[in-house]
Amino acid sequence: MAIDAREIVRRCRALAAYSEQAGNTTRTFLCEPMRGVHADVSTWMREAGMATQVDAAGNVRGVYAGTEHDDANGEPRLFIGSHLDTVPRAGAFDGVLGVMLAVALVESLDGHRFPFSIEVIGFSEEEGVRFGVPFIGSRALVGLVDDELLSRIDSTGASVADAIRQFGLDPGALASARTTDRAIGYFEFHIEQGPVLARLGLALGIVNAIAGQTRADVTFTGTSGHAGTTPMAARADAIACAAEWILAVEGDAKATPGLVATVGRIDATPGAGNVIAGQCVTSLDVRHVDDAVRAEAIDRLQTAAHEIVMRRGLDVTWRTRLDQAAVAMDSRLVDALTRAVARSGAPVLQMPSGAGHDAMILAAHMPAAMLFVRSPGGISHHPDESVLEPDVAAALAAGREFLNELAHGSVGPRRATSDV
Amino acid sequence: MAIDAREIVRRCRALAAYSEQAGNTTRTFLCEPMRGVHADVSTWMREAGMATQVDAAGNVRGVYAGTEHDDANGEPRLFIGSHLDTVPRAGAFDGVLGVMLAVALVESLDGHRFPFSIEVIGFSEEEGVRFGVPFIGSRALVGLVDDELLSRIDSTGASVADAIRQFGLDPGALASARTTDRAIGYFEFHIEQGPVLARLGLALGIVNAIAGQTRADVTFTGTSGHAGTTPMAARADAIACAAEWILAVEGDAKATPGLVATVGRIDATPGAGNVIAGQCVTSLDVRHVDDAVRAEAIDRLQTAAHEIVMRRGLDVTWRTRLDQAAVAMDSRLVDALTRAVARSGAPVLQMPSGAGHDAMILAAHMPAAMLFVRSPGGISHHPDESVLEPDVAAALAAGREFLNELAHGSVGPRRATSDV
Repeated sequence: MAIDAREIVRRCRALAAYSEQAGNTTRTFLCEPMRGVHADVSTWMREAGMATQVDAAGNVRGVYAGTEHDDANGEPRLFIGSHLDTVPRAGAFDGVLGVMLAVALVESLDGHRFPFSIEVIGFSEEEGVRFGVPFIGSRALVGLVDDELLSRIDSTGASVADAIRQFGLDPGALASARTTDRAIGYFEFHIEQGPVLARLGLALGIVNAIAGQTRADVTFTGTSGHAGTTPMAARADAIACAAEWILAVEGDAKATPGLVATVGRIDATPGAGNVIAGQCVTSLDVRHVDDAVRAEAIDRLQTAAHEIVMRRGLDVTWRTRLDQAAVAMDSRLVDALTRAVARSGAPVLQMPSGAGHDAMILAAHMPAAMLFVRSPGGISHHPDESVLEPDVAAALAAGREFLNELAHGSVGPRRATSDV
Repeated sequence: MAIDAREIVRRCRALAAYSEQAGNTTRTFLCEPMRGVHADVSTWMREAGMATQVDAAGNVRGVYAGTEHDDANGEPRLFIGSHLDTVPRAGAFDGVLGVMLAVALVESLDGHRFPFSIEVIGFSEEEGVRFGVPFIGSRALVGLVDDELLSRIDSTGASVADAIRQFGLDPGALASARTTDRAIGYFEFHIEQGPVLARLGLALGIVNAIAGQTRADVTFTGTSGHAGTTPMAARADAIACAAEWILAVEGDAKATPGLVATVGRIDATPGAGNVIAGQCVTSLDVRHVDDAVRAEAIDRLQTAAHEIVMRRGLDVTWRTRLDQAAVAMDSRLVDALTRAVARSGAPVLQMPSGAGHDAMILAAHMPAAMLFVRSPGGISHHPDESVLEPDVAAALAAGREFLNELAHGSVGPRRATSDV
């Protein structure tokens, strides 16, 4: 009866066939192909013993009842979820693996009940592709889908509310998507989407925090000029200036443990081979789990930019576009998950997540924890994205132990809540 | 009767009104507004005592007869010219100043004859804007407009031959545009289009050579990855790699006298702020008057690129797009021009040209020399391009002395030719 790792992987690959584009997997918020995903996931949830619904935000939700029920105070409930949408030309596992593991975990209980209910959620939206804003699904669970978000439009001019209606759902019912139960926590399986576990040769990673991020546009302005007639000493070359700063960014991050800093976009003007660039716009993305470390790094990179342009005779402008604090996972849940991984026989590694996840949204409202599954080659957001079946089996085993940890009362709703 | 510097500048600004675009000066090969330029220039040539024609390549040509004529061998002739086309959104002086100075120089003779004729040419095309190939006008003068060039098409699908016909000229008559006279040399006034004279506080520069050029596309290929989940040590970042090489390019050029090296274009893929760039294509433009120095620099920059990618774990490909040898100006003409500048009372500076000019084409066929006029601020290819009237007067005075030098027989057609 229990679903093995092979079947979990098979289900992920089967869902990857539901796509807006022939030949690849592209599945944005409430697109038509999502109907097939809903149907399959709901079927698998019911086979695992869950009562299912699709809420007004398009989240697929399945409840597996617990042994305790308190109509007055709501029942204690553990949420386990991840997302069902994808980036364009995606792989089969980002998000989907977490939902399939959650369903399999419940199915593996074979009718065994805990003193809390389990609600598995396949979130409708996490990637932010269609409307430029991520986490629509998990925001709905905690009441954060407001009118501003509902009125955002996609590239066709349709709003979030339009998309909900077009899918046959009622944006007026969004309030009912919000959980009112006594949440003992949120737990999420997710592929790592990075190379850390693969490089260490480990199947699993216990996420202890989600890194904070700064994003900025850093623009260097010099003087355009003729590449043939302007002597080197007479130049204020915006590309060369940006290059010096990009190396400073890289060097600073390499010298600061846990810091990642990336210049991923560089646009030079006029951008002709025989013209010295007068302007160069670069993007900066800096992440660390410790907000103070990140802030100090930003200070150093700003100082470096100013020092470089002063010496070279250019100007720099710095436009911060995002300054998002780090989110710690709940320490009691992290401890319980750590014990669970150890008991399952897998090596224990705690690690930060450099990427954002639904757990980041939910952590502000309930204790949250995440378990990473190795990404072979660190490959994600690409059709070659994969998982290893033994790793999926290890994640399932650790999940079972995690449920046992919670059931043994080492983490309860009240204590956990007071710990947040 | 003589035209002063103010009138020369006025004429340049008047011609700038002939444009394909309202509000700026844009005048490509044989565009309709060129008709007005032809009419005005021809008028001014005739007023200066020249017999005018427009040749089959659209060059405006005016001949001022000399005292010697030899029907058997052709007459000794000095060509003085520059171009009448412009880049898009151009200034008023690039090319045009050289033609206006030449006309004014002849007018200033006030009927005085030399033992050689003078032919002033306003070349129809030098910038390469319309057909992607520069120097159509000067190529025609030396028989280098071949069928391949005639069949090149512009953005509307019209060929060079079509453009000639549409202007009312006959591409079949191009052979007659070729000079058959005994050329004693080609002389060109041109704005410097760079900051060297302005920085030195000098009006004039005697061009001793036109720099050779290498242009290449240098592509760095690493591994794209998630900016949040990929530790610094696990990256093969194509932008950071390119940045290190760009600084090496700049440093090499700064350390090599007379060398200019420019990365003016940089295109990163995928070019998103939260994605490590997997590929970065850069342009390289390297110039020096000594081809050996340039070749050695290219070797060093290739070695640097390979060393950098090896150390960083990326790949580099190097595609040379242009390898154009330096062109020396004729030493006798340069000597004569140097004496002329000195005699006119201006400080003497010999300098290379980092930009290409019609003199580069003609130097392979006759002795050639150029005189640069200061570009205030080094500004060119821009509506703010300007000249100072005293500099124009100085150029005119030096030109008069140059004609005297030639007339005194210090440079003759036979000796000069044997010297090429």
